[in-house]
Amino acid sequence: MSRTIIVDALKRTDFGTSITVKGWVRTRRGNKSVSFIALNDGSTIHNIQIVADGGRFSEEFLKPVTTGACICATGKLVESQGKGQTVEIQAETIEIYGTADPETYPLQKKGHTLEFLREIAHLRPRTNTFGAVFRIRHHMAMAIHRFFHERGFFYFHTPVITASDCEGAGQMFQVTTLNLYNLKKDKNGSIDYSEDFFGQQAGLTVSGQLEGELAAMAMGAIYTFGPTFRAENSNTPRHLSEFWMIEPEVAFNEIEENMQLAQDFIQYCIRWALEYCKDDLDFLGDMYDKELYDRLNFVVNNDFKRLTYTEGIKILEEAVAKGHKFEFPISWGSDLQSEHERYLVEQHFKKPVILTDYPKEIKSFYMKQNGDGKTVRAMDVLFPKIGEIIGGSQREEDYEKLKRRAQEMNIPEKDVWWYMDTRRFGTAPHSGFGLGFERLLLFVTGMANIRDVIPFPRTPNNAEF
Amino acid sequence: MSRTIIVDALKRTDFGTSITVKGWVRTRRGNKSVSFIALNDGSTIHNIQIVADGGRFSEEFLKPVTTGACICATGKLVESQGKGQTVEIQAETIEIYGTADPETYPLQKKGHTLEFLREIAHLRPRTNTFGAVFRIRHHMAMAIHRFFHERGFFYFHTPVITASDCEGAGQMFQVTTLNLYNLKKDKNGSIDYSEDFFGQQAGLTVSGQLEGELAAMAMGAIYTFGPTFRAENSNTPRHLSEFWMIEPEVAFNEIEENMQLAQDFIQYCIRWALEYCKDDLDFLGDMYDKELYDRLNFVVNNDFKRLTYTEGIKILEEAVAKGHKFEFPISWGSDLQSEHERYLVEQHFKKPVILTDYPKEIKSFYMKQNGDGKTVRAMDVLFPKIGEIIGGSQREEDYEKLKRRAQEMNIPEKDVWWYMDTRRFGTAPHSGFGLGFERLLLFVTGMANIRDVIPFPRTPNNAEF
Repeated sequence: MSRTIIVDALKRTDFGTSITVKGWVRTRRGNKSVSFIALNDGSTIHNIQIVADGGRFSEEFLKPVTTGACICATGKLVESQGKGQTVEIQAETIEIYGTADPETYPLQKKGHTLEFLREIAHLRPRTNTFGAVFRIRHHMAMAIHRFFHERGFFYFHTPVITASDCEGAGQMFQVTTLNLYNLKKDKNGSIDYSEDFFGQQAGLTVSGQLEGELAAMAMGAIYTFGPTFRAENSNTPRHLSEFWMIEPEVAFNEIEENMQLAQDFIQYCIRWALEYCKDDLDFLGDMYDKELYDRLNFVVNNDFKRLTYTEGIKILEEAVAKGHKFEFPISWGSDLQSEHERYLVEQHFKKPVILTDYPKEIKSFYMKQNGDGKTVRAMDVLFPKIGEIIGGSQREEDYEKLKRRAQEMNIPEKDVWWYMDTRRFGTAPHSGFGLGFERLLLFVTGMANIRDVIPFPRTPNNAEF
Repeated sequence: MSRTIIVDALKRTDFGTSITVKGWVRTRRGNKSVSFIALNDGSTIHNIQIVADGGRFSEEFLKPVTTGACICATGKLVESQGKGQTVEIQAETIEIYGTADPETYPLQKKGHTLEFLREIAHLRPRTNTFGAVFRIRHHMAMAIHRFFHERGFFYFHTPVITASDCEGAGQMFQVTTLNLYNLKKDKNGSIDYSEDFFGQQAGLTVSGQLEGELAAMAMGAIYTFGPTFRAENSNTPRHLSEFWMIEPEVAFNEIEENMQLAQDFIQYCIRWALEYCKDDLDFLGDMYDKELYDRLNFVVNNDFKRLTYTEGIKILEEAVAKGHKFEFPISWGSDLQSEHERYLVEQHFKKPVILTDYPKEIKSFYMKQNGDGKTVRAMDVLFPKIGEIIGGSQREEDYEKLKRRAQEMNIPEKDVWWYMDTRRFGTAPHSGFGLGFERLLLFVTGMANIRDVIPFPRTPNNAEF
């Protein structure tokens, strides 16, 4: 008999029908005369209850049906008497696909720490928590593709291996096929990369933005969604060495349209989560973060407040003058810390905030220069709890201005000639932004550690699995 | 006035309305009294014609409106007199965003070879050919996500950086942050990887399958869609060093369901292309491959013929006996070459073919062993023109059998302990397959070289942009 997915089985009301479900045993309890098996197949956080009558199934037979075992059960769908569930299955046959020895199976019923589960990342998707997190991860990826596709954007794959580090966004990983035991050097003592796979030194991308801009200046509106890498030795709950980024880039968009796009985009994603991930959000909110729904609703129910960096600094300085204590000092020219961003969002405006027009010294070379000579058309979207969630800008479209700024910031022409070409030939105003996928997931799931929202986190000293 | 995307403008019939379009000039022709500008914004392969009346726009003003320039044009939408187009715009204002000096802009009207365009990959999305290819690439990615999402699969991100090369699918790129000028060695003369970023030797993944299996054995049905890497020195029109793979993995699926999934999947994708990419397919079919539609229809209109490798070999041997000449000899035990695969598809069955049950010696350690002791439950999907497009198998779910096979193939336990754990705890039958995204795109676009279906191809000696 063909298998019924548990998420579908739980919605059925055609009681009396015989169905087959397959999945992993979460718990088995009961006594000689009847056993109750909670079965999960990953399609939903909810288990279906299999009732195994003692008259039909011996204790001996059911003995290996322990937590973690995989079984196939066929039987009549009936209305459940138990609370918290509407249907259950009166088992007629049970086949055991695979056992899970209770002496060695690491995922017993209760009480694992998230730290312990990270060490068995190959099994943690079998837990309620990580089932929920990874289903939400799936849904957020779907929401992202759907949002951009509906608006006529093209999904564009920028390269992972690259010979240029133009953005200077962070330390790069080197990619090589050289034999490290036999490195050839040229007469100056430099390593001879002509022997390396790509004929030059290569590394892993820190951002697809620059290549994304090339595509936007041809196809109009594109977005990337791919892995990016930072070789920073940051052992924090907010940093990964390998993470996924979404970077839309739109020809003809100025900063105002860029802000609107960012707001529409992130509200769309969170509305999607509220609509399609309710069961998983209920679980995670209940287990880890009682204010989860409040924060999600806060973002979808408020227009984002737009103001300049300079106005933001003034508000923060006034707060300090009135006695508010920040850990880090704040004045015009300094980068905002998370505490400052959260003050603006949570205490001052009580709305998500978009700050624009930052000092050029603290932003990248490619951002559009304002007429004041001091600021650039950058924008950061600030959220409750986490601070900055999106960073973007209108891009400098003027060839001469961009060239001058690149020179001031010591970016070699040989690394960016192709990027400069978009300004030499058919340039136009354009804008874009970047969202770290795992930052979004931290916000949507309420999880506290970024290692718990990606299946196999890569961090210093950790590339297991 | 807000911008109208050209693909939308071309569908409008509200003649007399004033609209604004923005894009890049493909051509300008005409005379003193009237100029015709073909404008493209990447939203479609079709240009919109801007009619600039000599009375309103001087020759002097229009002089920089050359191929590649970026402009904004506002004017009345009118019915077109010209053939091949239904609407045009009678320009009232034209703003020039960016010029493209005809002396230096590389993309003049005609006659570039695909080889030349690869050298200017940063500009080639502005051509008809690459606009079409990358729009189709977008659509195929959407089709893939939609197909799996509709069927309850979860999109699962497997790691890009990995410390294990279990699949042995090919040469790996090494990823490191070690200072290559100062490599520390231990007392045995081995490089001390405890100083490297991950505390051990790491590389770029060749496949997400093994991690995908872990997820399937928890969440039921998953798929990956991400970049994979092969450091093979293959300079052919069919190999890339960096390419995107789609790898579905499904708990409880046996080989027959796996075959059906592969057929449904690829037919879904091609139907999507036929439905949503008609303009671009028309162009590519016309320019590069007159049989493109025939092959696409061949795949969607035929059930895939299923037979065993052994039966396939018999047919090929009979063909040889009857005088058919193959370049490579064929007998039981040898790997099929593209010519053999194409013979089965194009000449013998005149249908796409799925071959199963290959000799275990030519397949991977994780494939389910048949009772005959000789073959494994592998499956390859074979297509016209390109041969193998999908490779997959039912996976060996038996712990002891898998362990034995891994030992026979010299796969170190330390590299696969986590993979083996899925068989130790709650194992079940499961199956999956892999599709190289660019192979699919070669088939769908009719392009001949795989470097022309990915924006920035990485191949030996080439990591530019």
